[in-house]
Amino acid sequence: MLLLRRCHGLTRFGHVHIQSRHHLPPAVLSHAARLCSTHDNTSHRHLSGFSWKHGLAGLLAGAGAVIAFGLHRHEAEHPAAAAAAQTAESSSSLPVFGQEEVSKHRSLSEGVWVTFRGGVYDITDFVAMHPGGEKILLAAGGALEPFWALYAVHNQEHVLEILSEYKVGELCAEDLKKQEPAESSDPYSTDPDRHPVLRVNSLKPFNAEPPPEILTDSYITPSAFFFKRNHLPVPQVDPASYQLQVEGLPGGAVTFSLEDLKTRFPKHDVTATVQCAGNRRSEMDREKQVKGLSWGISAISNAKWSGARLRDVLLAAGFGPDVAQWARHVHFEGLDKDVTGAAYGASIPLNKAVSEEGDVLLAYEMNGEKIPPDHGFPVRVVVPGVVGARSVKWVGKIAVSAEESSSHWQQYDYKGFPPGTDWNTVDYKSAPAIQELPVQSAITSPADGALIDSSDGFLTVKGYAWSGGGREVVRVDVSLDGGQTWQVAKLRSSDEAHEAPPPPGRAWAWKLWELTAPLPPPAQELEIICKAVDSSYNVQPETFPPIWNLRGLLSNAWHRVTVKIIEG
Amino acid sequence: MLLLRRCHGLTRFGHVHIQSRHHLPPAVLSHAARLCSTHDNTSHRHLSGFSWKHGLAGLLAGAGAVIAFGLHRHEAEHPAAAAAAQTAESSSSLPVFGQEEVSKHRSLSEGVWVTFRGGVYDITDFVAMHPGGEKILLAAGGALEPFWALYAVHNQEHVLEILSEYKVGELCAEDLKKQEPAESSDPYSTDPDRHPVLRVNSLKPFNAEPPPEILTDSYITPSAFFFKRNHLPVPQVDPASYQLQVEGLPGGAVTFSLEDLKTRFPKHDVTATVQCAGNRRSEMDREKQVKGLSWGISAISNAKWSGARLRDVLLAAGFGPDVAQWARHVHFEGLDKDVTGAAYGASIPLNKAVSEEGDVLLAYEMNGEKIPPDHGFPVRVVVPGVVGARSVKWVGKIAVSAEESSSHWQQYDYKGFPPGTDWNTVDYKSAPAIQELPVQSAITSPADGALIDSSDGFLTVKGYAWSGGGREVVRVDVSLDGGQTWQVAKLRSSDEAHEAPPPPGRAWAWKLWELTAPLPPPAQELEIICKAVDSSYNVQPETFPPIWNLRGLLSNAWHRVTVKIIEG
Repeated sequence: MLLLRRCHGLTRFGHVHIQSRHHLPPAVLSHAARLCSTHDNTSHRHLSGFSWKHGLAGLLAGAGAVIAFGLHRHEAEHPAAAAAAQTAESSSSLPVFGQEEVSKHRSLSEGVWVTFRGGVYDITDFVAMHPGGEKILLAAGGALEPFWALYAVHNQEHVLEILSEYKVGELCAEDLKKQEPAESSDPYSTDPDRHPVLRVNSLKPFNAEPPPEILTDSYITPSAFFFKRNHLPVPQVDPASYQLQVEGLPGGAVTFSLEDLKTRFPKHDVTATVQCAGNRRSEMDREKQVKGLSWGISAISNAKWSGARLRDVLLAAGFGPDVAQWARHVHFEGLDKDVTGAAYGASIPLNKAVSEEGDVLLAYEMNGEKIPPDHGFPVRVVVPGVVGARSVKWVGKIAVSAEESSSHWQQYDYKGFPPGTDWNTVDYKSAPAIQELPVQSAITSPADGALIDSSDGFLTVKGYAWSGGGREVVRVDVSLDGGQTWQVAKLRSSDEAHEAPPPPGRAWAWKLWELTAPLPPPAQELEIICKAVDSSYNVQPETFPPIWNLRGLLSNAWHRVTVKIIEG
Repeated sequence: MLLLRRCHGLTRFGHVHIQSRHHLPPAVLSHAARLCSTHDNTSHRHLSGFSWKHGLAGLLAGAGAVIAFGLHRHEAEHPAAAAAAQTAESSSSLPVFGQEEVSKHRSLSEGVWVTFRGGVYDITDFVAMHPGGEKILLAAGGALEPFWALYAVHNQEHVLEILSEYKVGELCAEDLKKQEPAESSDPYSTDPDRHPVLRVNSLKPFNAEPPPEILTDSYITPSAFFFKRNHLPVPQVDPASYQLQVEGLPGGAVTFSLEDLKTRFPKHDVTATVQCAGNRRSEMDREKQVKGLSWGISAISNAKWSGARLRDVLLAAGFGPDVAQWARHVHFEGLDKDVTGAAYGASIPLNKAVSEEGDVLLAYEMNGEKIPPDHGFPVRVVVPGVVGARSVKWVGKIAVSAEESSSHWQQYDYKGFPPGTDWNTVDYKSAPAIQELPVQSAITSPADGALIDSSDGFLTVKGYAWSGGGREVVRVDVSLDGGQTWQVAKLRSSDEAHEAPPPPGRAWAWKLWELTAPLPPPAQELEIICKAVDSSYNVQPETFPPIWNLRGLLSNAWHRVTVKIIEG
């Protein structure tokens, strides 16, 4: 097992401390040795059959840390390796355990055991290497199947290979039979249909983005094309019985029906761009591998949201100056729940929640229609200017608190770290939860690698630009020569010809931009770059390495595409 | 005269459109031709005697655009050039004009004439080239002396040279005599004494910064060391008769005495960092010449300010929801005035001025004592999180308005432009006035070029970090190897051991930071870099060229110092 430490397929997650496990069968140890003692750096991207090419995909990818492996460096060269894949099914000489015994192993001190398809696995040593972090402990002492049903990325052959290394026994037949109901239903079976044009990054949970060329076709993104970022199955909510619970205020919990939200509070419209913290992760990943969904440049979209202001609802529920004395945060819980019953959750600072200028909505409409299931039907939070992860969909509970949300997604995900931090040194307490996002822009047309007909002598470049915290984008610079010279793009703030600029600090929506410029005469290839400036004159960083972080968040370096000029 | 367009000493201000002036004496034309037809790129930094080495320093440097010329590229090779310097004094064959005639020339259409030491000058063609912008027109039709007394940068030989080119006549003796009172007094004679440790960038008006090694000695900058940035002479204000006038509100103008401000409103303390928009300009200038005072890294300081909240004063003067319907800006006017009686002025957005969380002060104390004359005695505005130019000193008037201040400093200075904009293409209407500043940091120790004794094996690096808009600095990364690897510095938020973190969005004060790290063993020279990250995860740009702008503002690229390692 110690040999595994030398296998890059594992150590890409950093240098981990693995204690020896004396009870591991010698046969597994020898397989591990064979698997990891050789590297083949020449046969990349071998796509079929058993291999280590995807590296360690993890047993449980919680926290949105569904894994994208861009590097495919290591393959086993021995045919014997294939046999190892069967270990999970074929080892019959191992001891038989009852569920009661398995259930005793739910912690790092007692050991972490799980069951899968009748096998018992001691994954204690794997916890530190799990790409999804400590969320793996939710499965401790029980069956993996319900978790893997939630995070479908696990349903791949190479994940079984990893698991096989940790097998320590068989589950007794009687207890295995009891587990069956847990395996029977697919929690994603009621997920809505989606538009086929979306580029899917993960089916279960559903995560997808529109193609860039569609993204900036209109200032308001049609809901069907709006990027989808679900952490869990889409919950089925009956609008007639929907109740929003508001807690933590002096009068005790208060509930509001959907009708209450629509009739008791003024309806506010806010056009706001929502961006995933992982937008443009794939570019950062190309510099050096990061962990997370491989988003392109379209995990960002812009919609008109309508609903009650959170401020108004909190005031109606009892918020006042007395509460402001001690309260610091407002928590949101979704109605989307994992198998343990834990809901998706997040929080935002109180001052953002209650400020008249914060424009935080409990939205029941998106683009003038009821919110589609993927976007939070019947009610979602929209926190303008803030990372999408705080705009909790299908919101069921709101709580005013002195503390930040203890949710996994607030405490152990969606934070930024310095380039030198890896999975062994990361200290989640050391970084603040992402709220406002930094300035961002990208080129949606032409696409990287496009062929440009030189016959009309001009090139049109299009894209989007946005900044967090209500900071308006005041300029987008575009270079056609790899950053040597810059031209200023024309900005567009709406689909209408004339619209008043947003009040200072409340520019929640993106700007689309466009530049038409003469093609540089002698060029055969152009590197096109865009960079935006916001009203605080913050700018995008030039390259990815200085902002690289292990989760691939906040990926806002200059966007670059290279095109070839051809004679028409 | 057209030949002047080919002289780099002039065209460094861009490609200007100069109409031919047929009335210019041929002798002057020939001098101009000789002066500009040859370049000597080899004898840089020739420091004595007549030369073009300082380029065109401008006749009137208003708008804070006192000029720092870092490039010294062009020198005249003909001794005859020296003769040109005398033109202003010696040409006696020119016509004699009365002041009445001179006064008719006050516009570009009628021609722009000025007088200086008895000479009459038609500077129409120079207006577009004036480093201080159109403020030069304030002197149109009158004497230069009172303006040059305000902006002492003009009192240099090479400025006289430029002026001599434009001589068209002599002022009649009678009118010259009438001018004398205007020349007699130095408006700076009552300026206060300053600490000798300050590094002076301009004496009149006084602009100076502390040495970096002193700057971060204490979290609160002692007032004597706090950087000074004056646009005009320090006004003499009698605190007993001081009146603050508040205008633009329904009840009409209201005045408050100093005593009113101290007794009628709660006293608020705000620790806030103030930074000049031109801080670190000298670094940007090294990439490519910019215009403005050559600030190092210390045009930033941190003080505890105490006073009445602007919000409270505005409410007392009649501000309310009705005013908020139409008002958008709050203007400030200083009691510092130029010779035309125009006061220094600026404005900030209304929402910043009246927000409970904006923390804008009418401060009458700095670091627990009455505000020193250089910093605004008896009352100044402090706008936390915003460029220093809006924290108007010696404030005498406040006005609530639907429009932004029309002040030169709001409309024609303190704005950011793209790298491709020069003095010919700049359109001040195209950019927003700087309010919130971007994230910033710098290394105050070791100094650039320092020798580091390697004997103890460790190096300590110190500096400051700050961001605008109340965004807290959450991390400072330090590299000892030119940006290859990064270490995280320890941040300090006060001089006390424990202090509660600021509320979100109200982190107005800088953080001092420090890193002690082992010296990289084989290094003989180290490039040390720092870069900060704020709570919106905005970062500093890597280099200056992509943020270069003609005024050298917003200069916040990574700060780099190079040190040599020596054996102790």
